[in-house]
Amino acid sequence: MSADAFAVRLAADRARVDAYLARVFDARQAPAPRLEDAMRHGLLVGGKRLRPVLVYLAGRALGAADADLDSSAAAVELVHAYSLVHDDLPAMDDDDLRRGQPTVHRAYDEATAILAGDALQTLAFEVLARAAHPRLPALMLTLAQAAGRDGMVGGQALDLAAVGGHPDVEALATMHAHKTGALIRAAVRMGALTAVVESDPRVAALEHYAQALGLAFQIHDDVLDVTGDTRTLGKASGADAARDKPTYPALLGLDGARARALELTEEALAALAPLGAASAPLAELARYMIERDH
Amino acid sequence: MSADAFAVRLAADRARVDAYLARVFDARQAPAPRLEDAMRHGLLVGGKRLRPVLVYLAGRALGAADADLDSSAAAVELVHAYSLVHDDLPAMDDDDLRRGQPTVHRAYDEATAILAGDALQTLAFEVLARAAHPRLPALMLTLAQAAGRDGMVGGQALDLAAVGGHPDVEALATMHAHKTGALIRAAVRMGALTAVVESDPRVAALEHYAQALGLAFQIHDDVLDVTGDTRTLGKASGADAARDKPTYPALLGLDGARARALELTEEALAALAPLGAASAPLAELARYMIERDH
Repeated sequence: MSADAFAVRLAADRARVDAYLARVFDARQAPAPRLEDAMRHGLLVGGKRLRPVLVYLAGRALGAADADLDSSAAAVELVHAYSLVHDDLPAMDDDDLRRGQPTVHRAYDEATAILAGDALQTLAFEVLARAAHPRLPALMLTLAQAAGRDGMVGGQALDLAAVGGHPDVEALATMHAHKTGALIRAAVRMGALTAVVESDPRVAALEHYAQALGLAFQIHDDVLDVTGDTRTLGKASGADAARDKPTYPALLGLDGARARALELTEEALAALAPLGAASAPLAELARYMIERDH
Repeated sequence: MSADAFAVRLAADRARVDAYLARVFDARQAPAPRLEDAMRHGLLVGGKRLRPVLVYLAGRALGAADADLDSSAAAVELVHAYSLVHDDLPAMDDDDLRRGQPTVHRAYDEATAILAGDALQTLAFEVLARAAHPRLPALMLTLAQAAGRDGMVGGQALDLAAVGGHPDVEALATMHAHKTGALIRAAVRMGALTAVVESDPRVAALEHYAQALGLAFQIHDDVLDVTGDTRTLGKASGADAARDKPTYPALLGLDGARARALELTEEALAALAPLGAASAPLAELARYMIERDH
């Protein structure tokens, strides 16, 4: 498939999860409408919908039906969106813009942003509970472990502790494996578990793919923060350096960071071998992610 | 049972859920130990463990075994604890003390308190997922609906909107029904659903009990805020009036508020009729809650 054709397919999956999420907000009497609006705003500025796309691609590669994947796709995106809302808060990264839009605490207020993030997280589990997939315990445990103290939030705590410090490449990889890697891996695993049981060896193969992809994605983000411009990124470029955040380009140089991202992409592609031809869209995604400029 | 004997029994249930929660934190390698400590601190200053006690009493009244109730008891307490950590933040109620201890953002820092609250919420769903009760979808949906935009967080948003305003008694009841009532009701419902199916009429009876009890409890809290002293309460008394929060004593007078709390307690007791003798501990709890001085 050409890169353009693949981009069209990605857009279709994004539209699919967005339509599902829209239904979660439509046709209801919200007790606190301002909170509801802030939650919608947080979801809207979330971005690329990479995690839902991974749920769909991984699930389909093992034979799951799209309709059975929607709730997991929505749930991982809701967790991702909540984490961005809280990450942008004044006590955290103190960001005013995300994807060219005001962050939730700028568009509303700080208290509303805290609550909107809280409720987006809860909504992830509510959406999952409603779908009541036969493997709900495994899906829910996968999401909770990836989102919480042993995954994303643990990584954010490590990230906070690292600002102004001088972590080495290994410590940086550990931080990213928690902060962004865990949820990317969970997305792929939830897609897989919708189709097959945990012991199927293709689940582990997909998790290996996701682990390498997640880190490649993060390194590429660090590179873009150095080389991109603010308009394309939708946020201030050079922001990491300005706040003294440890990054791969700072530790490995720009060329070294690029080389590491390519190496990890190759690792991700190799991990897909046990899936055969069914994994072609996942391979295309890995290549696509490393070529993006925003 | 005498009030003293009942207090001993309450203490045993508190100890039971605390032991279960301690195991959730013990014997593990935490990736971010400071986050972990902050989460523990947030759980510790949570207080009376009313919600876990309600899970146990409601579940036992319908024949559930204690071991099957532990995960729901722990999960509602984790949600309650997370909400207190975020409620105390500078952008929210800006409280320095809770139960005589520094609040999480005072003992640690604001970013850590945001993350600790986030991770406590996730942990609630993780604990529930691990137990994998046959009725997990219903248990999870009950907790998520009670915790999120249609329940507790929705109520906190209504509470924020009400500060400095002049809501009437009905608006105040709606706010409390969401902010504190929803989780108290969920606790009782989760206990019940551990034992019986949703359509069992005793589930609705228990939810009616919990609804009345929850509001009685809140009104009694408002009364204590006026009449109690800071040492007994473990927080500054008169805090509500000082920050111009709408309260029942302000709207109904102190005697009017006390009368309403008693009326609701009677309603809670009457709702237990379909359960017969099995509901005696729940009746004792309702009486106990209205007589407490902290």
